[in-house]
Amino acid sequence: MAPSKRSNGCPIVFALDILGDKWTLLVLRDLIFKGKAYYQDFLEAGEGVATNVLADRLALLKKEGLIDSRPDPDNRRKIIYRPTDKALDLIPMILEMVRWSAKYDKRTSAPKEFLDEMDKDLSGLIRKLRSQFT
Amino acid sequence: MAPSKRSNGCPIVFALDILGDKWTLLVLRDLIFKGKAYYQDFLEAGEGVATNVLADRLALLKKEGLIDSRPDPDNRRKIIYRPTDKALDLIPMILEMVRWSAKYDKRTSAPKEFLDEMDKDLSGLIRKLRSQFT
Repeated sequence: MAPSKRSNGCPIVFALDILGDKWTLLVLRDLIFKGKAYYQDFLEAGEGVATNVLADRLALLKKEGLIDSRPDPDNRRKIIYRPTDKALDLIPMILEMVRWSAKYDKRTSAPKEFLDEMDKDLSGLIRKLRSQFT
Repeated sequence: MAPSKRSNGCPIVFALDILGDKWTLLVLRDLIFKGKAYYQDFLEAGEGVATNVLADRLALLKKEGLIDSRPDPDNRRKIIYRPTDKALDLIPMILEMVRWSAKYDKRTSAPKEFLDEMDKDLSGLIRKLRSQFT
């Protein structure tokens, strides 16, 4: 994946080149919406990502400036991952994705309180989600 | 692709199963933002989609209820494609994608007036885009 070479400036192609791969966005989901921070957390997230695929996607997210990694202060042999501002700026897009899916997926697991909060105070919800990381 | 089977209710997986493939969203871009309506238009859109891939994605979009197709009233041997309400409900997500890419892609081709309109009156812009099809 080489976003800047392929996109030719189209903003939809640019975003898809980085985010179109399912696992990339699922790692961001786990980081931003599920409070996950460790490799093992992502691996066990439920969709069954293979360890080599996960390692590859984490490397891509780091290369694209969407995540930071550093040794965990509580256990320096573990790496802790955090979303960057560039990743947090994806929250509005991800929330609109959630809203759409909740409308069209009869089996959606998006919590009703979360959807209500989106409807009532979208910018407040975005601020709250960001504030976990600042 | 079988969205409802794989998603397990996660709204992000649900959306990605339908939209994660690059060509799917680019056809919606051409329909909604570029006023394209014919097979040949999509084929010539610039990113070089292969005709068999395009036919496959159009069939998927139709199966998922995102596009309608009917004979062109002006030339009944041509098929005209239109986005459904389900597709038009993706406009907010696509706009947030555009906003993000415009911020982070130095070579973005997203027009400044369009970005300004998003900042000034997002819901008005969404209504205007929808109104092309109603």
